Amino acid sequence: MKKNIVLVEGAGFCFGVKRAIDIAFDVAQKHKDNVFTLGPIIHNPQVVEKLKDLGVHPIDDISQEKIKTLIIRAHGIPKEKFNEIKKLGCEIIDATCPFVKKAQNLAEKLASEGYQVLIIGDKKHPEVKGILSYAGEKAVVIEKENNQFDKDEKIPSLDKKIGIIQQTTQPLHKAKEIMNRIINSLSEFEEIRIFNTLCNFTSKRLEETKKVAKEVELMLVVGGKNSANTTQLANLCKEIGVKTYHIEDAQEIKIEWFSSAKKIGVTAGASTPQWIIDEVIDRIKKFTN
Amino acid sequence: MKKNIVLVEGAGFCFGVKRAIDIAFDVAQKHKDNVFTLGPIIHNPQVVEKLKDLGVHPIDDISQEKIKTLIIRAHGIPKEKFNEIKKLGCEIIDATCPFVKKAQNLAEKLASEGYQVLIIGDKKHPEVKGILSYAGEKAVVIEKENNQFDKDEKIPSLDKKIGIIQQTTQPLHKAKEIMNRIINSLSEFEEIRIFNTLCNFTSKRLEETKKVAKEVELMLVVGGKNSANTTQLANLCKEIGVKTYHIEDAQEIKIEWFSSAKKIGVTAGASTPQWIIDEVIDRIKKFTN
Repeated sequence: MKKNIVLVEGAGFCFGVKRAIDIAFDVAQKHKDNVFTLGPIIHNPQVVEKLKDLGVHPIDDISQEKIKTLIIRAHGIPKEKFNEIKKLGCEIIDATCPFVKKAQNLAEKLASEGYQVLIIGDKKHPEVKGILSYAGEKAVVIEKENNQFDKDEKIPSLDKKIGIIQQTTQPLHKAKEIMNRIINSLSEFEEIRIFNTLCNFTSKRLEETKKVAKEVELMLVVGGKNSANTTQLANLCKEIGVKTYHIEDAQEIKIEWFSSAKKIGVTAGASTPQWIIDEVIDRIKKFTN
Repeated sequence: MKKNIVLVEGAGFCFGVKRAIDIAFDVAQKHKDNVFTLGPIIHNPQVVEKLKDLGVHPIDDISQEKIKTLIIRAHGIPKEKFNEIKKLGCEIIDATCPFVKKAQNLAEKLASEGYQVLIIGDKKHPEVKGILSYAGEKAVVIEKENNQFDKDEKIPSLDKKIGIIQQTTQPLHKAKEIMNRIINSLSEFEEIRIFNTLCNFTSKRLEETKKVAKEVELMLVVGGKNSANTTQLANLCKEIGVKTYHIEDAQEIKIEWFSSAKKIGVTAGASTPQWIIDEVIDRIKKFTN
């Protein structure tokens, strides 16, 4: 019996990662020599290996190699690094996620207009290091994880005029909590200017997955067993009460899963490439047609 | 025995009201004809009567009288009203509180830069009506009192780019609560630009009163028995545990109050003129010297 398969909108790679990988493969297909990505384009070995086969290699340091073409990955890089690369005279292909670029641009704009820039994010994350490099000398990064923002603790000493941006992948609730803390000290400020630089992709994927899980009889959640966000998706589906399988690839799928399900939902974590999702869909079709 | 008298910093008129009254008396002393204030300069009959004696009369409507000089009081007035007055060709003396003026200017700036202006304040208050007239067509006033902002209620539908200002006398905690609610809907906005237009005078007076009340043996709180903010000051002192008298003027003071107190504190509400405070101090000195 033919089954109805519903793929969750936004399953798999986020827009910025997908775009960066597309750019890398596009470059790879032009068969140029000495093409590199600064750091792995994504933390997915299959993708990195495929690119290597096509002649696009990840490097950690620009001094190591003779570079003709350098691809900057979705996270973006610090301004100083960018200027250093420019001096090499190589072709630069900037695959920085447009949302990250927007955060970099806003950081630069705020700093140039005299705001102290406050970035809500993880200090060690490459994206934050990049944004910070555009945010001027007075910029600070606030990350709750390091207990910089304990419940009864005061906000670090800040200027009267502050501009707030967020690492694009920060959880909304964390960003809100920190901003509410700042609002609570309103009397210490003249102006608090908040730009929303959050990419709502992750929360949207969760929402869409929830919606689909409620209307199907079986959910397949595709992604690494050790992927936090894929596991989160699988748990969400289980909580809703739908029969759920967390799989890493199409080979794990068993024909007997589909005996009683008329409508089947498919979702995938942020590190799951489209071709794995496609293979999963194909195998479901094969088993259910 | 000589006593130590401590007058609370910021007791009595706030800066803006004091300034407006000073301006009115200054004009009065120039003995001009046909000088008016648009509305009473302060809700204190003694002050208004004194000004009348000096030839400065409150009017409600500019069409009623032949006006040579018109004083605009601390609250400010709507832009349209101001333009209407300008057409009269009379001398305009603008005693709008500089903090209110700042809020008007920021409202106009935000509106001209494309922000939807959100004013936290009481819709019916003359100050808010004035600010609103500068805030552009899309502006909204949010006032918790009218249940526009119930706990589980959504924020009224707003633009993606909003600018927030506050009526200068709004309680800080109310402004914070409303702004926190807006931050909680961050994902619906691109930019939230908050200017602090609160006059921290009232909260500062409370703080300073608290400080003095803790170090004296007797507190005299001067102001109308029906004045909310004077009563608040008196209650604060009583809560701290110091012997407290809430008086309206110097005549109520009794010599026996001072028998056991070495250090006496004096504070006053926002509508208490300085000369009443001075009379109180003089009478305490007379009784304790």
